[in-house]
Amino acid sequence: MPDKHELVLTRLVLDVLKPHKPGMVEFAQALTGLKGVTRVEVSIIEVDADTETVKLTIEGNNINFEQIANTVKQLGAAVHSVDQVTYSHPTKQQT
Amino acid sequence: MPDKHELVLTRLVLDVLKPHKPGMVEFAQALTGLKGVTRVEVSIIEVDADTETVKLTIEGNNINFEQIANTVKQLGAAVHSVDQVTYSHPTKQQT
Amino acid sequence: MPDKHELVLTRLVLDVLKPHKPGMVEFAQALTGLKGVTRVEVSIIEVDADTETVKLTIEGNNINFEQIANTVKQLGAAVHSVDQVTYSHPTKQQT
Amino acid sequence: MPDKHELVLTRLVLDVLKPHKPGMVEFAQALTGLKGVTRVEVSIIEVDADTETVKLTIEGNNINFEQIANTVKQLGAAVHSVDQVTYSHPTKQQT
Amino acid sequence: MPDKHELVLTRLVLDVLKPHKPGMVEFAQALTGLKGVTRVEVSIIEVDADTETVKLTIEGNNINFEQIANTVKQLGAAVHSVDQVTYSHPTKQQT
Amino acid sequence: MPDKHELVLTRLVLDVLKPHKPGMVEFAQALTGLKGVTRVEVSIIEVDADTETVKLTIEGNNINFEQIANTVKQLGAAVHSVDQVTYSHPTKQQT
Amino acid sequence: MPDKHELVLTRLVLDVLKPHKPGMVEFAQALTGLKGVTRVEVSIIEVDADTETVKLTIEGNNINFEQIANTVKQLGAAVHSVDQVTYSHPTKQQT
Repeated sequence: MPDKHELVLTRLVLDVLKPHKPGMVEFAQALTGLKGVTRVEVSIIEVDADTETVKLTIEGNNINFEQIANTVKQLGAAVHSVDQVTYSHPTKQQT
Repeated sequence: MPDKHELVLTRLVLDVLKPHKPGMVEFAQALTGLKGVTRVEVSIIEVDADTETVKLTIEGNNINFEQIANTVKQLGAAVHSVDQVTYSHPTKQQT
Repeated sequence: MPDKHELVLTRLVLDVLKPHKPGMVEFAQALTGLKGVTRVEVSIIEVDADTETVKLTIEGNNINFEQIANTVKQLGAAVHSVDQVTYSHPTKQQT
Repeated sequence: MPDKHELVLTRLVLDVLKPHKPGMVEFAQALTGLKGVTRVEVSIIEVDADTETVKLTIEGNNINFEQIANTVKQLGAAVHSVDQVTYSHPTKQQT
Repeated sequence: MPDKHELVLTRLVLDVLKPHKPGMVEFAQALTGLKGVTRVEVSIIEVDADTETVKLTIEGNNINFEQIANTVKQLGAAVHSVDQVTYSHPTKQQT
Repeated sequence: MPDKHELVLTRLVLDVLKPHKPGMVEFAQALTGLKGVTRVEVSIIEVDADTETVKLTIEGNNINFEQIANTVKQLGAAVHSVDQVTYSHPTKQQT
Repeated sequence: MPDKHELVLTRLVLDVLKPHKPGMVEFAQALTGLKGVTRVEVSIIEVDADTETVKLTIEGNNINFEQIANTVKQLGAAVHSVDQVTYSHPTKQQT
């Protein structure tokens, strides 16, 4: 557990290229069990023949980027780019 | 009932292609009885000769995508795409 | 009276084609006496020679679409389309 | 005084064509004394050689459209169209 | 002092043509001493060779348009048009 | 100290042309010590070969325009125009 | 520790050109340990072959621009421009 004054990763916005399977709901759900994650939102950006581009927003307290990126990879998808990263004080609600 | 720290499906935005019958009101109402659903909103996007495209937003606590998709199918409509999926902590109000 | 956990129709947005008579104010007022209605708003969208298109928004608790559509018809107007339908928990204030 | 559950006219937005005299301020003030009126706002839309088009917004509790339209006429102006009408429960503050 | 239920002039938005002198700050300050005025804001709209057009917003309780217009004139400027007038109940803070 | 009912200069927005040196941070800091100033914000608008145009926003209680303009001049910059001036009641927090 | 009435640097928005390595998350994290910093946000603006342009927003109490610029440089990146600088009273939460 980080020192109370330490800033932790609280928000990540990722541009992700994923196959159509697993679907949006399964994809989002697979990310909900990760350490510190309190909110997962997946929004469709563009749909192509075999793939779709989604904006993946993960919020939480002290979330772990490596773990998220690995889970995305295990789902057959790829982090195309990291669009936004926020470090701040943890919010009160801890998972 | 999910563990209090577990994230649950709290919001779904679906792009749905439906026939003109059942109408908007009947279509929305048919989705209100499903488990965990606390809000159903249907907005018209485009009207064609035999069909209409609607944006269907379902909010709730621990809503069930399969059940929603099945109900949509039973209404003669089809989930064209899942536009947004949100997993978060359940809100206080439980149905 | 619906079960306290039941979702009820709380908002309707209708696209209505109406003659110039009755006027906007009489038209809105005629809808205020219907069961469950707590707010009626009529906004002008387009004015033509003999008719005008208005956006009619009805809010309330457990409002009745059939009753609203019938009243609109009795006023010589027609529901051109249902643009938005919301089912949610009733709000506290009951009429 | 209307029944406490009755919806009353609480907001009117009128498109008004007025001569340059009386000016905006006198025009607005002349409407402030009418029954139920709690707010009068006049915004200029277009200025022509002899006339100006203004958006007149009247808010209050149980305001009277006929009385407002008559006062507008007595000021040498004309209600060009009624752009928005809202009926709702009266707000607490009563004049 | 007006009756507590009376609506008073609470906001004026004026389009003013002024010479470059007095400057924006002196111009705004000269209006701060007038009866009922609680806020004066001057924003530049257009700058020409000898003059500038400004948007002058005056807020307060029971402000006096004639007095404001006279003060504007004494500063060598002219009220080009009255863009918005609001009458409402006085706010609590009285000057 | 001004009378408690007196309006004071609380916000200034200036369009300033400054050389690249001193930099944005030094420029902002140099203005923080002036009487009544509680907030200084400098935003870049346009960068040219030898100069840059910045929007300088100063907030405070009873701030002094002359003093600010003089400090800007001592920093080798020039107030190109005064874009917004606000006089209002002083806020509680006093420096 | 600055005098309680002194204004301190509370927000910096920097336009930064950085190599692809270190990535967005490592880049943001490297800035979290600096004195007074309470929030670090990095957003991607443009991606080129070898570099990327990011908007770096640093918030805090009495943050130190030199220290931030040095850390950016040590990460192989360059402050392209300072886009916004805010000095204000320190907020309550102190790191």
